[in-house]
Amino acid sequence: MPKPTLWTENGRVFIIDQTRLPLEYVVEEIHSVEQMWSAIRALRVRGAPAIGIAGALGVWVAIRDADAKTTEDLLVIVEKSSEYLAAARPTAVNLFWALERIKKHALQNASLPPDEFKKTILALAEKMIEEDNEVCLALGRYGASLLKSGDRVLTHCNAGSLATAQFGTALAAVYYAVEREKKRIEVFADETRPLLQGARLTTWELSEAGIPVTLICDNMAADVMRRGWVNAVFVGTDRTVRNGDVANKIGTYGLAVLAKYHGIPFYVAAPLSSIDLSLSSGDEIPIEQREAEEVTHIAGHRIAPEKINVYNPAFDVTPHELVTAIITEKGIVCPPYSETLPALFKLDPHS
Amino acid sequence: MPKPTLWTENGRVFIIDQTRLPLEYVVEEIHSVEQMWSAIRALRVRGAPAIGIAGALGVWVAIRDADAKTTEDLLVIVEKSSEYLAAARPTAVNLFWALERIKKHALQNASLPPDEFKKTILALAEKMIEEDNEVCLALGRYGASLLKSGDRVLTHCNAGSLATAQFGTALAAVYYAVEREKKRIEVFADETRPLLQGARLTTWELSEAGIPVTLICDNMAADVMRRGWVNAVFVGTDRTVRNGDVANKIGTYGLAVLAKYHGIPFYVAAPLSSIDLSLSSGDEIPIEQREAEEVTHIAGHRIAPEKINVYNPAFDVTPHELVTAIITEKGIVCPPYSETLPALFKLDPHS
Repeated sequence: MPKPTLWTENGRVFIIDQTRLPLEYVVEEIHSVEQMWSAIRALRVRGAPAIGIAGALGVWVAIRDADAKTTEDLLVIVEKSSEYLAAARPTAVNLFWALERIKKHALQNASLPPDEFKKTILALAEKMIEEDNEVCLALGRYGASLLKSGDRVLTHCNAGSLATAQFGTALAAVYYAVEREKKRIEVFADETRPLLQGARLTTWELSEAGIPVTLICDNMAADVMRRGWVNAVFVGTDRTVRNGDVANKIGTYGLAVLAKYHGIPFYVAAPLSSIDLSLSSGDEIPIEQREAEEVTHIAGHRIAPEKINVYNPAFDVTPHELVTAIITEKGIVCPPYSETLPALFKLDPHS
Repeated sequence: MPKPTLWTENGRVFIIDQTRLPLEYVVEEIHSVEQMWSAIRALRVRGAPAIGIAGALGVWVAIRDADAKTTEDLLVIVEKSSEYLAAARPTAVNLFWALERIKKHALQNASLPPDEFKKTILALAEKMIEEDNEVCLALGRYGASLLKSGDRVLTHCNAGSLATAQFGTALAAVYYAVEREKKRIEVFADETRPLLQGARLTTWELSEAGIPVTLICDNMAADVMRRGWVNAVFVGTDRTVRNGDVANKIGTYGLAVLAKYHGIPFYVAAPLSSIDLSLSSGDEIPIEQREAEEVTHIAGHRIAPEKINVYNPAFDVTPHELVTAIITEKGIVCPPYSETLPALFKLDPHS
């Protein structure tokens, strides 16, 4: 199983600095809330689930070291540090959600003495890591059931360990199949331009875990499929909506079309937290447009002329008819998604 | 119309140094055969048609400056410089073919006095430029007939001016439509990993020619098609065989699948010199595998971990059933290519 991405040890907080990967594996201890803010801001920790947990751990660090005499003083610090951390990446919904959860929990425990109060905040942050691990292991268990020994999986971007606390979403299936079920699985990793998360992160975490991985440029996926080298495509999702349309890293949609053409199943690993039943189709998902420099410059080096147009969407939408199945922590769902996805939530009396 | 890529002026020889693009437009005068050898070797001049002409011009420079008293001495220089230049890129068929043509021409003119002999070599090299221009303009004229004003074309790699003497193959259609027919045409240029010919060269030459161009990463082509922004795909080819299977820069095949899925015509601009009737299907085309570093490093900067596998084919093969039409200098041919392609050659009493 992969190394953890962020963790605690007796109240101390550690993250892997992902900006140093793949050249160096650097563990960073977080000593202050300001340091956690900058770690989130500068993408030293990234991936929606991981960022949420990082926010919660940031609040913990803030109160851990606070020179506060009363729980009331600590509550003020929880409030202020939450507000501060939420601004590190203002569009990250998971970060906002995790900080809201911490704040609510703090208010519910306001009657505890300061030391007990601190412990309960740490306990919640650690519970969020455990919950993420449980969700990812469930995604892995269900996802692995779609793989047989000898299969080769193609993936895009990084929906792996480094985007979560430890086990990943799409790649959880691969880790589970290999480690728990002793299946032989190989992975093709799209490099994933423009930010190269596949080349930098997916290849790194898979090779660290001893899983054979082959890096390809995004435009090589079709050739690899045509040669019969791919048994399944596994990707993550940023948001999946009621009809089964899937928003994910730019390039995912093209892969889905190619998979369909080659008769290869196309699977999406979607924690329930990424499923948004409030939207009825993918057309309603706002698509972030990012700056041209991500495309025109690589590692600070200009690769394209000035004064040209650049189109650089962060995500694309894969229509539900191209999605073979959606893997969730409550099981695998198949079309018609507009029926099967809402049913997942009805199963849970708490939702 | 675009600037020439290589040209003569009163016997002097000039090339655009493509390794300096897109950051700088540098014209290099070629003063010696050694300098032409290194220009070909270091990809300062590239693209099959352009390389062939560069070889011929290199021989001209060798004899132009030779301190030879007799035509016999010049013939020796033609022979030696041809052999020398052919080794600059040993796998470039066009280079070999152009040098053979120069050598044959030299032998046929061995009875001329030295000055006349020199002139006839220059004349042949210049004729090769003219012939390339005629072929490209014919490709442009036929290609442009497939475009209407307002169309948006998606292209891959660089099948433009910079790969030929001046007018390009696939992009000739765009230049012709815009300059001669006053149609409004816009282009989406795939960046074309790993070597980024689209980002570096295609965007440069189109914007120099005043044609609106939008750079995208390869994995964005599907999204651009889905939005209805692409009316036609135009690509070049390194080798097209008897049944219409097309070998071209890696990524071309995936584009063809995506074009089919979106109902977008997929056109290949293929000079007759790139059509190889000796092979009956694309399976017989040898595919060059290139070094991993082209994928794992960008601008000298490592972007992927060490000790991973990399798959880096230079080309892929697009099966004929995905090719809407093939544009040649003798006209546009449609399926069944195994009948229409050989017929093209039968039309020509010289072939």
